[in-house]
Amino acid sequence: MISSFYPPQRTLMGPGPSDVSSRVLGALARPTIGHLDPLFLELMDEIKELLQFAFQTDNALTLPVSAPGSAGMEACFVNLVSPGDKVIVCQNGVFGGRMKENVERCGGIAVMVEDTWGEPVSVDKVEAAFDDHPDAAILAFVHAETSTGVESDAKALCALATRRGALSIVDAVTSVGGIKVCVDEWGADAMYSGTQKCLSCVPGISPVTFGERAVKRINERTHKVQSWFLDMQLVMGYWGGSSKRAYHHTAPVNNLYALHESLVMLQDEGLDAAHARHRHNHLALVAGLEAMGLSMAVDPDYRLPQLNSVVIPEGVDDAALRSALLNEFDLEIGAGLGALAGKTWRIGLMGFGSNERNVVYCLNALEAILQRQGAAITSGKALAAAHAVFSK
Amino acid sequence: MISSFYPPQRTLMGPGPSDVSSRVLGALARPTIGHLDPLFLELMDEIKELLQFAFQTDNALTLPVSAPGSAGMEACFVNLVSPGDKVIVCQNGVFGGRMKENVERCGGIAVMVEDTWGEPVSVDKVEAAFDDHPDAAILAFVHAETSTGVESDAKALCALATRRGALSIVDAVTSVGGIKVCVDEWGADAMYSGTQKCLSCVPGISPVTFGERAVKRINERTHKVQSWFLDMQLVMGYWGGSSKRAYHHTAPVNNLYALHESLVMLQDEGLDAAHARHRHNHLALVAGLEAMGLSMAVDPDYRLPQLNSVVIPEGVDDAALRSALLNEFDLEIGAGLGALAGKTWRIGLMGFGSNERNVVYCLNALEAILQRQGAAITSGKALAAAHAVFSK
Repeated sequence: MISSFYPPQRTLMGPGPSDVSSRVLGALARPTIGHLDPLFLELMDEIKELLQFAFQTDNALTLPVSAPGSAGMEACFVNLVSPGDKVIVCQNGVFGGRMKENVERCGGIAVMVEDTWGEPVSVDKVEAAFDDHPDAAILAFVHAETSTGVESDAKALCALATRRGALSIVDAVTSVGGIKVCVDEWGADAMYSGTQKCLSCVPGISPVTFGERAVKRINERTHKVQSWFLDMQLVMGYWGGSSKRAYHHTAPVNNLYALHESLVMLQDEGLDAAHARHRHNHLALVAGLEAMGLSMAVDPDYRLPQLNSVVIPEGVDDAALRSALLNEFDLEIGAGLGALAGKTWRIGLMGFGSNERNVVYCLNALEAILQRQGAAITSGKALAAAHAVFSK
Repeated sequence: MISSFYPPQRTLMGPGPSDVSSRVLGALARPTIGHLDPLFLELMDEIKELLQFAFQTDNALTLPVSAPGSAGMEACFVNLVSPGDKVIVCQNGVFGGRMKENVERCGGIAVMVEDTWGEPVSVDKVEAAFDDHPDAAILAFVHAETSTGVESDAKALCALATRRGALSIVDAVTSVGGIKVCVDEWGADAMYSGTQKCLSCVPGISPVTFGERAVKRINERTHKVQSWFLDMQLVMGYWGGSSKRAYHHTAPVNNLYALHESLVMLQDEGLDAAHARHRHNHLALVAGLEAMGLSMAVDPDYRLPQLNSVVIPEGVDDAALRSALLNEFDLEIGAGLGALAGKTWRIGLMGFGSNERNVVYCLNALEAILQRQGAAITSGKALAAAHAVFSK
């Protein structure tokens, strides 16, 4: 017989899920009500408004897809790509490859713009791709690459797409809540995010937003969206503003309680304050890591504060170190992904988890295990270096 | 500024979500751990085993899709239907229509077998459809129609599909946990369910299972599954039995805690006992409703114990009655759907919510509001009639 499962209390400093506050877990466990309950419909309106705030947009079609970020990505592609459409896809990490898969499964043609993993998307290369493919209907790129810890210039890329008459699809899974995201200011046409990164909510929901040009494209489709579940024309009937909501699917009621709570927390803190907090804790972590003699994998100009890629020093047993952190410190950090597997760690400081306690805890644990493994590091300096940043 | 949301404590006796026990809500709120944490991978193995129990199958490809039942439905269709495939779809309620949409969006050809809403799928008509379309690749039908409260003969329909060399796709969203479901005994090839019905878990997850013939069909596909998120070949890399799990998408960790707990509760009670409980409470509810002078919309031969369709008496204001139940009693019952809107109520007695307290509470509340509306009902008899069944 199988018995109840009691997870340990981990400190989550990987690429997500990040630490969830007890306030959000408390909201998650509130009593379930019906997905057509008038009070739930009011909650949906508030979630929409809070997501508009988080995305910095007035887009009416802003809502949480009832599934993880990958489904949010798919929602953007299946609704906007029609068979035969040419889509310029930027790849500088894992998630560009997933975008390519999405385009092709929609019957579109992916034109790849490749950049080195660990570098941002080159705006010049995208410009050249548009020169070669002036008929490209869409430009898709990742704002904050979770696999490498790199920020690309979303504002410039969205502006470029608009200038070339193409729509932009922006992956903001790891950026919303952690760094500046301005859908309306940038003129981004479609954007998706995740709940389990800088929003510090449990995983399983993907906020999306579609601008006017994107909605027009959806409404003018002649080929039905291949996914019934993700068809925005149908989803709009449930999430749309009208008082008469049509049942589409059963909303994940409790997850939406949690999302609402995490967004209220973001609203109460304010976006600027949240971004400054992410930056401050990031600088403290980096100071500590560098004082230890470790080096960052990404140039400071485009380093993400919420996802810190650290070069694994030679001779260190990556898997053994991460296991020791998990088993002895209940601390999760992320492994390198794809081309960076075994070469980097990914240390997340996301949302609620971006705090002084986590920075100190991680530096202390990392130093202890690295010392034990006999790594060539400088001992006893990391915490002081971090504290020097905190006290600024 | 938007503030925290505190839902009322409803009694959920609609078509789902059903009442969630505090044990499951407690599990839901346990601290989040990583989706690649070794302890989480162990939890996944247990969930698989528990789902195999719930589905009564040894199918290796049994797992919870990270999205609601509609996505579980879509997972079955996108993986099994290739462009040009002919699919016999049985429609005797809302959800057959959704299956047709799925088939067509996969590029398949839907051959519809229509039955009256409120009646089961006619096995003879399906036989005739196979006569007319001997090349049909798949038979799809709903075991327990949530829109009408009708059970169809899943065993006979699965056997028929097998005899005709077709795969069967079975919608068991409302049946698993409430009435007998035997994937292996029936020879069902693919089946999906939901968590928010007779499993009494929060909404948002869809358990699915694929048998050997279905897996063979998936592996022999020449056309990529159109959904990246729901592509079972990719999902298997994460949920498969191997010790090396490949990241596909971030699992909804907390929802899976909750699903695990609800399945442990089902395991501890036992399937036969759970089914008997559903039947017993159903008979008590029906006795009470009939003693009040109300009549059931579905013939007892194929009535679902977990979803009771009741004919709305003439002169009763449907919407006003359901509002009064909600506002005065915090009690949710379901409206009729589609062709039955305004004609029936749907009273759910699902999972944890199938208990004597709910039966009594509902009969009492319904009688109070019907009396106030001046409906021609018999007063003061319902509770005694229900108790007569309970005391058996």
